[in-house]
Amino acid sequence: MAVLRERLLLEVTPVMVPETKAKVTVVGVGQVGMACAFSILQLSIADDVTLIDTMEDKLRGEVLDLQHGSLFLKTAKIRAAKDYSETANSKLCIITAGVRQREGESRLDLVHRNVEVFKQIVPQLARHSPDAVLLVVSNPVDILTYVAWKLSGFPRERVIGSGTNLDSARFRFLLAEKLKISPSSVHGHIIGEHGDSSVAVWSGANVAGVRLQSLGPDTKAQQDSEGLLEIHRKVVDSAYEVIRLKGYTSWAIGLSVSNLAQSILKNLRTVQAVSTLVQGLHGISEEVFLSLPCVLGSAGVCGVLNQPLKEAETQRLQRSAQTLWNVQRKLTL
Amino acid sequence: MAVLRERLLLEVTPVMVPETKAKVTVVGVGQVGMACAFSILQLSIADDVTLIDTMEDKLRGEVLDLQHGSLFLKTAKIRAAKDYSETANSKLCIITAGVRQREGESRLDLVHRNVEVFKQIVPQLARHSPDAVLLVVSNPVDILTYVAWKLSGFPRERVIGSGTNLDSARFRFLLAEKLKISPSSVHGHIIGEHGDSSVAVWSGANVAGVRLQSLGPDTKAQQDSEGLLEIHRKVVDSAYEVIRLKGYTSWAIGLSVSNLAQSILKNLRTVQAVSTLVQGLHGISEEVFLSLPCVLGSAGVCGVLNQPLKEAETQRLQRSAQTLWNVQRKLTL
Amino acid sequence: MAVLRERLLLEVTPVMVPETKAKVTVVGVGQVGMACAFSILQLSIADDVTLIDTMEDKLRGEVLDLQHGSLFLKTAKIRAAKDYSETANSKLCIITAGVRQREGESRLDLVHRNVEVFKQIVPQLARHSPDAVLLVVSNPVDILTYVAWKLSGFPRERVIGSGTNLDSARFRFLLAEKLKISPSSVHGHIIGEHGDSSVAVWSGANVAGVRLQSLGPDTKAQQDSEGLLEIHRKVVDSAYEVIRLKGYTSWAIGLSVSNLAQSILKNLRTVQAVSTLVQGLHGISEEVFLSLPCVLGSAGVCGVLNQPLKEAETQRLQRSAQTLWNVQRKLTL
Amino acid sequence: MAVLRERLLLEVTPVMVPETKAKVTVVGVGQVGMACAFSILQLSIADDVTLIDTMEDKLRGEVLDLQHGSLFLKTAKIRAAKDYSETANSKLCIITAGVRQREGESRLDLVHRNVEVFKQIVPQLARHSPDAVLLVVSNPVDILTYVAWKLSGFPRERVIGSGTNLDSARFRFLLAEKLKISPSSVHGHIIGEHGDSSVAVWSGANVAGVRLQSLGPDTKAQQDSEGLLEIHRKVVDSAYEVIRLKGYTSWAIGLSVSNLAQSILKNLRTVQAVSTLVQGLHGISEEVFLSLPCVLGSAGVCGVLNQPLKEAETQRLQRSAQTLWNVQRKLTL
Repeated sequence: MAVLRERLLLEVTPVMVPETKAKVTVVGVGQVGMACAFSILQLSIADDVTLIDTMEDKLRGEVLDLQHGSLFLKTAKIRAAKDYSETANSKLCIITAGVRQREGESRLDLVHRNVEVFKQIVPQLARHSPDAVLLVVSNPVDILTYVAWKLSGFPRERVIGSGTNLDSARFRFLLAEKLKISPSSVHGHIIGEHGDSSVAVWSGANVAGVRLQSLGPDTKAQQDSEGLLEIHRKVVDSAYEVIRLKGYTSWAIGLSVSNLAQSILKNLRTVQAVSTLVQGLHGISEEVFLSLPCVLGSAGVCGVLNQPLKEAETQRLQRSAQTLWNVQRKLTL
Repeated sequence: MAVLRERLLLEVTPVMVPETKAKVTVVGVGQVGMACAFSILQLSIADDVTLIDTMEDKLRGEVLDLQHGSLFLKTAKIRAAKDYSETANSKLCIITAGVRQREGESRLDLVHRNVEVFKQIVPQLARHSPDAVLLVVSNPVDILTYVAWKLSGFPRERVIGSGTNLDSARFRFLLAEKLKISPSSVHGHIIGEHGDSSVAVWSGANVAGVRLQSLGPDTKAQQDSEGLLEIHRKVVDSAYEVIRLKGYTSWAIGLSVSNLAQSILKNLRTVQAVSTLVQGLHGISEEVFLSLPCVLGSAGVCGVLNQPLKEAETQRLQRSAQTLWNVQRKLTL
Repeated sequence: MAVLRERLLLEVTPVMVPETKAKVTVVGVGQVGMACAFSILQLSIADDVTLIDTMEDKLRGEVLDLQHGSLFLKTAKIRAAKDYSETANSKLCIITAGVRQREGESRLDLVHRNVEVFKQIVPQLARHSPDAVLLVVSNPVDILTYVAWKLSGFPRERVIGSGTNLDSARFRFLLAEKLKISPSSVHGHIIGEHGDSSVAVWSGANVAGVRLQSLGPDTKAQQDSEGLLEIHRKVVDSAYEVIRLKGYTSWAIGLSVSNLAQSILKNLRTVQAVSTLVQGLHGISEEVFLSLPCVLGSAGVCGVLNQPLKEAETQRLQRSAQTLWNVQRKLTL
Repeated sequence: MAVLRERLLLEVTPVMVPETKAKVTVVGVGQVGMACAFSILQLSIADDVTLIDTMEDKLRGEVLDLQHGSLFLKTAKIRAAKDYSETANSKLCIITAGVRQREGESRLDLVHRNVEVFKQIVPQLARHSPDAVLLVVSNPVDILTYVAWKLSGFPRERVIGSGTNLDSARFRFLLAEKLKISPSSVHGHIIGEHGDSSVAVWSGANVAGVRLQSLGPDTKAQQDSEGLLEIHRKVVDSAYEVIRLKGYTSWAIGLSVSNLAQSILKNLRTVQAVSTLVQGLHGISEEVFLSLPCVLGSAGVCGVLNQPLKEAETQRLQRSAQTLWNVQRKLTL
């Protein structure tokens, strides 16, 4: 074939690996990692998508399967990394590796098993891509983002957890269904811990600037009669329900993560709820990561929104911070 | 919530289900069906994606998972059909249901099990969407496309098998890798039976109109020394290899099918290798479906390319036709 | 060539003009019409883009130029209509024809010249595409949308003016520049008359649900010191400034209109400020069209948002309504 | 506003201009330059689009107009450069500046006027973006690409002319119209000089590998009876015809150039006909640029296809080379 190539082409420049400008590494080729990788490929936002996993056969099979679709994509390089040296110079590293949340299992229960996994991953990513943004998707995401921050030694803005970005998307979808409006026109944020104690910031939920709360009664009982509290409950239950029905979640988290990846790789400075270091914000003194609306760009988290919260919302954030810290303090990193 | 909606919106037109213009039904929510559906959603080519399967929980879980990503998509309607009446008025029905090909299993072995499955599906699709194009993906695809044609009573142009469209994409990827050129600039078609006896039409393989055969030696032995025959072997082995490594194929077939869907829904009249009724072509007298380069548009197969073949290639097609017919004649449809 | 075609292809289905599902007609091939058409082509949201204009040479030249780029587009049909019969069965008709606003000219001054133009256009569009949505872009847009409504006899939901959708986009861009945030994350609506008396609904302007007004002082003088009033002034001046600098506006209106077209053709039900019949809303009794946030789908305006306004804002809307009505009452339609 | 921003956001990282990864500079904001810029913006392939021109008002107006559409785009930075220092670190510089071809004027007549223009542009681009790829669009493109090569001192692979890429697209569109097939499935290249003496490589023109010449009679007179020669004539006349009808060409060249930009910025290694240094190829000894099918990637022209030509085709290339050289030798660069 080398002969064919020589006969076909007069080479003007040697085939070198050019300095890639938008390389993304995805760690973990389970259902979540693959949905992230596939979604990023279809968005054509990277010029190199590198996958890595300890399951060698699975890794090779998934990458081959993606490569076989190259004709229909616009990403120059799709590859399986044999070791972390091949992830070098990534602009974004997405960590989806880890033991999967089981039906009924709380996200916190997963932590110890996954810290060990992260110790095999994060220092190597950090060494080979010292300027990358780390985006943690594995659960429990808030604690593992903290773990990745500690293990990487990266500045806070370059370690992000996918956090409640997906919860917010689910929230907007559910409200949109009720209102018969596109989810892109229904605005609202779920913040705090990605999981059972997340906080729906109802005061900001709006359509075209019209606050939903301004339309209805305000007391808790009455809100419930409108089904608003029910919607937040449904958001919290969403992951559990999908896991119960199909065994895992994949598509929505893949779309949510590829959307974050787009903001980061294209430096869009969109505002999205992601898990970031919240120490010093909303009266939280612990060194914990929780989701707040952040400005996302090529530097990672460029800013955190100064969102006015109600007393009860702030308390809930603080309680989550406490809970997370109680877990984190016992970790040896 | 109805109250909220009323307070938020002055309704000008009732929320009706508008006559959808580009409704796609995907039958089967296994790995292949879901990769097809997800890929179609990310391409924004449909305005309604309806999924249906007999596994109710799995179906609901997959659809919920897709719906949770609605915010990041531009498809108005994603839904799980409880029965076939909800697939009504589809423009395109993609059939991925069926027992999966097992490691080492030939595609032909699957046929009897899957004919029974198709009897539950095709007549119902045909009844509710009498003007749809049927796109069969389940294996053995050529026989099952024939089965779908018979069971639907549709004209030949509206029953298509995904056939060797994916084989051709794999062929172009493998050649492209060798030549260090984008697969979109390396042209070549794999035709005939999707499977072990497919035919690589080397005489047409070219880059910018330069035929690869014109560059190298012509005899079979020498072609092999250039690795050309090896590439076709690799294409044939691809599915087996991916199945061995990860257990199934999904991403590439999803991309291949969504690309076919795009040509059909947007009436692009692109030329792609798909399985079509070949009776009367290349000296084939049997009523069988095999892949040939076809013009794809909103009417389905608008034309079949009159591709000059070598004697050996024609014989191989005829032998495949014979083999398929020997299986098909024993089916009771 | 017919011979070549016959030799190349076995025709399975005759080359018929299929019933198009997403046909868009653009009336007027000036800078605005062409920016709309080009933008819609690049978004791949139509399967037929038909242009029509009385300037035959210009029309043919523009369409040829677009057709020469077909290879890079995914729209099956691009054509110049010789007469209105060729616009038949459009789903969306975009009217950009009319005399252009001159530097310094107010939008209202244009009205009489353009009513005559509309009499040549609208009844013919309505006759050949009786189910279409009409989207008026020509200025003065609010009055001409009323004119199109009267001349077409269409129900109110199917006659829309591009209105302040572009003003709102400019508003969001200007705020975004100041805040160093993506315009897609800065929310705010300009409503009312597209032109000098438009209304910025500051009470709804927000980032992630955080109202900008909640951050700063409230009195008018102080708002100005923050530059907020200045931003609205800049929005109003935008068109004049661009016209002064380059002679006309084109790109932004093209993007704004193609975005509206996407919501309509894909039935997305997004909320966008467009000009709609406001009689009965906000205390307006006249039969006039003004921009309010509307739900846009395949039926056109599916709903109008019930946006709480301040006294001063309502008064400004009412005054605009009065002004428009004083012009409209003198028109003979 | 600075106050507002401080109240709204906790800044995590200072708003710095990040090292852009895919910056494109467009020189010249005439119809061609703007169609290129707009097309690149809608493709979302750059993260910074910088425009520059000597007509300050026009430049500011065009950029303002693009910026007003930012909400509908995904490019972080759109700006007007006051001087060439603001074009620094571009990955791709597209030169569209120059006096426009007048109706009836040959491309060669333009050369002297445009060399002077290029002396003001190219050295400055080269100084501020020493690693950029230069893509020349101004006419006569082959000579001006040579001029840009000489003035920049860049290696040959990083100076490219848009050349016959558009002619090839027109050729494919015209063939596609005749064959009722998508232009993306009709393959063929126009090579040589962009202009009256371009060469249609009929031997390579094919659909799915089926050579059009294999279908029809071979002699020149007979080809003509099939309308094949007529098609090439039409390609050559295209620019003249569009210019006669609308005054200039814009849309197709914009799409053609944005397609080249995509291959370069995303390192796709597609094969496209562009103007490159052909000295040493096809028996050409002069230092001239002519279009041949090239592999395009982030390094620019990565390879030139070794396309077998007929005696008459080669002679035509050589004659073009001679003609160009006779012009070029008299230039003082």
